Amino acid sequence: MSSTVGKVIRCKAAVAWEAGKPLVIEEVEVAPPQAMEVRVKIVVTALCHTDVYFWEAKGQTPVFPRIFGHEAAGIVESVGEGVTELKPGDHVLPVFTGECKECRHCKSEESNMCDLLRINTDRGVMLNDGKSRFSINGKPIYHFVGTSTFSEYSVIHVGCLAKINPAAPMDKVCILSCGVSTGLGATLNVAKPPKGSTVAIFGLGAVGLSAAEGARIAGASRIIGIDLNPKRFDEAKKFGVTEFVNPKDHHKPVQEVLAEMTDGGVDRSIECTGSVNAMISAFECVHDGWGVAVLVGVPNKDDAFKTHPMNFLNEKTLKGTFFGNYKPRTDLPNVVEMYMRKELELEKFITHEVCLSEINKAFDYMLKGESLRCIIRMDG
Amino acid sequence: MSSTVGKVIRCKAAVAWEAGKPLVIEEVEVAPPQAMEVRVKIVVTALCHTDVYFWEAKGQTPVFPRIFGHEAAGIVESVGEGVTELKPGDHVLPVFTGECKECRHCKSEESNMCDLLRINTDRGVMLNDGKSRFSINGKPIYHFVGTSTFSEYSVIHVGCLAKINPAAPMDKVCILSCGVSTGLGATLNVAKPPKGSTVAIFGLGAVGLSAAEGARIAGASRIIGIDLNPKRFDEAKKFGVTEFVNPKDHHKPVQEVLAEMTDGGVDRSIECTGSVNAMISAFECVHDGWGVAVLVGVPNKDDAFKTHPMNFLNEKTLKGTFFGNYKPRTDLPNVVEMYMRKELELEKFITHEVCLSEINKAFDYMLKGESLRCIIRMDG
Repeated sequence: MSSTVGKVIRCKAAVAWEAGKPLVIEEVEVAPPQAMEVRVKIVVTALCHTDVYFWEAKGQTPVFPRIFGHEAAGIVESVGEGVTELKPGDHVLPVFTGECKECRHCKSEESNMCDLLRINTDRGVMLNDGKSRFSINGKPIYHFVGTSTFSEYSVIHVGCLAKINPAAPMDKVCILSCGVSTGLGATLNVAKPPKGSTVAIFGLGAVGLSAAEGARIAGASRIIGIDLNPKRFDEAKKFGVTEFVNPKDHHKPVQEVLAEMTDGGVDRSIECTGSVNAMISAFECVHDGWGVAVLVGVPNKDDAFKTHPMNFLNEKTLKGTFFGNYKPRTDLPNVVEMYMRKELELEKFITHEVCLSEINKAFDYMLKGESLRCIIRMDG
Repeated sequence: MSSTVGKVIRCKAAVAWEAGKPLVIEEVEVAPPQAMEVRVKIVVTALCHTDVYFWEAKGQTPVFPRIFGHEAAGIVESVGEGVTELKPGDHVLPVFTGECKECRHCKSEESNMCDLLRINTDRGVMLNDGKSRFSINGKPIYHFVGTSTFSEYSVIHVGCLAKINPAAPMDKVCILSCGVSTGLGATLNVAKPPKGSTVAIFGLGAVGLSAAEGARIAGASRIIGIDLNPKRFDEAKKFGVTEFVNPKDHHKPVQEVLAEMTDGGVDRSIECTGSVNAMISAFECVHDGWGVAVLVGVPNKDDAFKTHPMNFLNEKTLKGTFFGNYKPRTDLPNVVEMYMRKELELEKFITHEVCLSEINKAFDYMLKGESLRCIIRMDG
């Protein structure tokens, strides 16, 4: 048993003291895990748009000082009372949402929106006692979405940890914690394109490219990428995207362009931008009779989705998904196995790599649109 | 072989000479079937709202003189060139939409919206030669949705005829031609409520009650009927409706009332009114994570369906259906068998019965809201 069990661990973490200001590497104190909590040694983390979005805190509730980070892989250091499914040494992926296995959602085969552990971006503390496990000289540093992986050690609810194959390379599978699973699951679990079908992907960022990767795995014969940035097409080809449409190149709505390209509409579409106009296009571009559109991108607060109801009567389906409909504990280990069997390719998503001390570079790459995923090694 | 084969048949039919004026029983000439057509002796027909809607021709393209009628059962009298799947004596249900078995929709397992034979309410002639098979003294009388069952004989495209079990009582299964299958299929084929689930039905007319019948068959434990007319609840109980909500009795939107009754929302909802506000309520009343709403009622031309896109992101699904997603030729024979096995009850839908000479009474019953289904016997 590790000598750290039951004790406070002092380690390095990247602390966001203020909205939009560079993170600062600090020595933090990480308290031992309480009931149903697990202390995890983070081995590698990655940067996702959601971290940047809440760090910028433009219109979001500002919760500072805070430790961001939610795409990661690590090793269990110690477990709190009542934790039976994990033990020290287990390899895990922390997840920003959870699976308590007790609520109506967890008991339903159709839902992954756990009542207890569903994402809460405003909460900066642990559920057990409403307090943070991070501090610097006694002053609390807040958690982020229950994961806070920009720290060498983090305390995480057991329901937010997927136990994975210890042979899986953590510097690859860490990106399955969030964005890649979200896009992949949107295609494989929700859109379910039949083999040989045509799939439209709106938005060719990491989530959209993961959705394209899902379409490639499902055997789609045409994968049409839609993006306002034509530079993204070259990279998208690696993810199976076969055709590219830039809405700016056309005078008519993009759903009409797609209908002309596909004899009436695509079989499946997946919206990964969060723009409400793209959502409407993504729905209206699917074919009568069998088309299914899946919304992934998060809309603005005041957006209204608007369409003619005959589009539904003509047997078009509209669905949305949260985390690709994956149940974190039940399903993520299987996604890791898809990678291990080489069905799913992860290497092509990882465009940059830095060590913890250089974490602000990862923010720069993302803000400049240069990176898909930049991984951050904690031991660097 | 019948002596009428290849000859014009003179018989009685109820002709609509003008919009909104009582039908007149006339002697009409019915030409022999051409290629891919079938002449059917109609044994029993029923009246559906759609007949009344196009007979009133308020805002619809007026096509007169016309023979209405599309819910019926009959016996094949003779077949035209190229018809191999039906022969004289076969029992059939005429259907307002069709299944050519050749187009992309017919070949897709997911669609029933046949490109060739999909409902066309403006066309009053046969596809083969663009002419009517009905005439009086040489003057054409137009067809309605390819069926025109208010006639002792009608000529119908083979793709719009479902061959059924000859042991099935035609005065019962005739109502499977349209409304009952539409509601039943919306539940069984599209909403697919799990056993023990809660289903909301918006609109308790014949289609809504058929949707409720589907929910009963699927084993739903709560079936909540929503209607502005409280008188409909008593009848609805026979169809498995367990609870009733009248939106007029509440100050808050009905979706909020339903959410309170069901700890967050119903598992499935089926909209059978065509009101766009009911459509929005039907969607918003389903539960996060797994709720599915199905639109059946036909909206007005200028309606806009509007909701916050987060409703989709929270894993609510919105679908529509046409004819309950049944493929007429492939699937209707099996629905007839459901009735034969006593899984599906049809008797309770049939509230009135008249003979052809009294057909205008059937219109009165429906216009006064007194009937669910009034069947019309052709030999009366």
